[in-house]
Amino acid sequence: MVGRELLHFLEKSRLPVGELRPFSSGSAGKTVPFRGRALQAPPVDKKTLYGCGLVFFVSSDEISIQHSPGLAARGVLVIDDSSAFRLDPKVPLVIPEVNGHVLRRRLRLIAGPNCTMTPLAVAGIALHRAVGVTEVRLATYQSVSGAGRAALEEFFRQVRGHGRLAVKGRAPVLHSSIPHQALPKPIAYNVIPQVGGFDQRGCSGEESKVASELRKVWDAPTLRVSVTAVRVPVVRGHSMSAWLTLRRPISPAAARKLLAKTPGLKLSADGDYPTPLLVGGKGPVYAGRIRQGATPRELCLWLSYDNLIKGAALNSVQIAEELLKKGWL
Amino acid sequence: MVGRELLHFLEKSRLPVGELRPFSSGSAGKTVPFRGRALQAPPVDKKTLYGCGLVFFVSSDEISIQHSPGLAARGVLVIDDSSAFRLDPKVPLVIPEVNGHVLRRRLRLIAGPNCTMTPLAVAGIALHRAVGVTEVRLATYQSVSGAGRAALEEFFRQVRGHGRLAVKGRAPVLHSSIPHQALPKPIAYNVIPQVGGFDQRGCSGEESKVASELRKVWDAPTLRVSVTAVRVPVVRGHSMSAWLTLRRPISPAAARKLLAKTPGLKLSADGDYPTPLLVGGKGPVYAGRIRQGATPRELCLWLSYDNLIKGAALNSVQIAEELLKKGWL
Repeated sequence: MVGRELLHFLEKSRLPVGELRPFSSGSAGKTVPFRGRALQAPPVDKKTLYGCGLVFFVSSDEISIQHSPGLAARGVLVIDDSSAFRLDPKVPLVIPEVNGHVLRRRLRLIAGPNCTMTPLAVAGIALHRAVGVTEVRLATYQSVSGAGRAALEEFFRQVRGHGRLAVKGRAPVLHSSIPHQALPKPIAYNVIPQVGGFDQRGCSGEESKVASELRKVWDAPTLRVSVTAVRVPVVRGHSMSAWLTLRRPISPAAARKLLAKTPGLKLSADGDYPTPLLVGGKGPVYAGRIRQGATPRELCLWLSYDNLIKGAALNSVQIAEELLKKGWL
Repeated sequence: MVGRELLHFLEKSRLPVGELRPFSSGSAGKTVPFRGRALQAPPVDKKTLYGCGLVFFVSSDEISIQHSPGLAARGVLVIDDSSAFRLDPKVPLVIPEVNGHVLRRRLRLIAGPNCTMTPLAVAGIALHRAVGVTEVRLATYQSVSGAGRAALEEFFRQVRGHGRLAVKGRAPVLHSSIPHQALPKPIAYNVIPQVGGFDQRGCSGEESKVASELRKVWDAPTLRVSVTAVRVPVVRGHSMSAWLTLRRPISPAAARKLLAKTPGLKLSADGDYPTPLLVGGKGPVYAGRIRQGATPRELCLWLSYDNLIKGAALNSVQIAEELLKKGWL
């Protein structure tokens, strides 16, 4: 899913793409579109890979672990959207608008963060710099496309499996045994509070990633983060409700002024808010419903954004563009 | 929607229903099923209403304001599921498992709480009694049936309007201009962070109700509550992620023991959790994912329950059953 978006943004980017060599983990004979042509996308091939100047990984941790260090050692620039190296202290984890300053000329391996963490880091950085964020609580509403192609196909199959729904007397009680495989429970007309496996503390993989990656990108090692990551029956577009505890209180009006100037963020008019259907296919992070939380030192906000774009593909392209701008590509 | 559930639970209840007189705000000639018969449900008629011994209101605030005080003054017992009298200091707001002790023999007007607050009050009361809850943060995942029949029909129409979805290359970007009227944005394949209108502080009606009603039912006037209420494309079953700040810390394991003994609550096995599809048509509140929050004094939990049942109709019937048990009906 993210690979297709990456090609889309590479076409629109000012990056000087001479030759594009797509690889695919899928079936043989697969093609992908680029600049009006259908390019063969064979399984990854080490020799071709080592001949590239810049490699984007939008694949599994395993593929990245297998190839990234060797490529970087040979001078190939790698921008990795997998989670394999994100927490490696030698690898910068980069969102250009937030911490582009950590990029260095000689770096050959650069990681892009988790698609749920990125928009929160973008939206909260101005507040963090101005008044200090000490605690973050986050409930997510994550679309099915974030779980990949098989999950999205399963979702559409389940919608068809429930048939043509109608209200006759009581609200219909849907059968809960509809088949599922790609996701841990059926997703059509349901929500699933599990994204990844659970650790011993009861946190899912997604929840742990958001916490540790946010600490790294914001350079805030003592930040306390609690996340409930939930899959919802949406095609594109993650959303979240975020509570930020601040070192110094700030009014919602003053927070709105900071957010209005934040790069990469679009703020809804007062009283309005973004939803996944609005943000599908678009690049920015959208924010709304800025208000006081449970205490005067807490702000509450709502975010929606296209998870395949700023959450993943666009961020990788923006890292390369930032390097180009600095003359390091 | 709730009226139909109420009839369903009255049929199964031990309440000695002699004659049932349903009223409807809908079109003339409407019938509803009860004990195998189709009963006429005309618009509300004062004379018939005043001849009843017990009146359940599952209608608008306006209808309840118009009739409840007069009925109560004439000795008719009124159990009101609207929000009209919930915060009236002379009217008890009752969830039998939580605060059944506030019921009195002579009371003629009793209110049932908001369908989003009820399960949280049920799930948290044992923790509140044992260690004290000082702050609550809540993100909800509310089903469309909670917004009524027109919203549910609109949801199903929108699903059909999007047609047969498939994954071809990029994940589909759905058109966001699909018609909507009953809800403030389209709900199919979307989430809407608005349930009710917004007040000056930026809180929706639903969010304010949860806060003020929870303080009343728990008799906790200083409790700090922050809610983000969100509609999700689910037919039946509200869910929520709740963060409870505690006066004294308690381990997730000790909290699980308390929750396992809580009346009206069913606890998932460790590592499992409830979802809306699982709880549809069922009476209890289901809880899972009990874990530490952002600080050692905070617990995080996940709830799912049928919003039309324990959230509304079943609670009203349980209030009447509680009065019957005490010999006050």
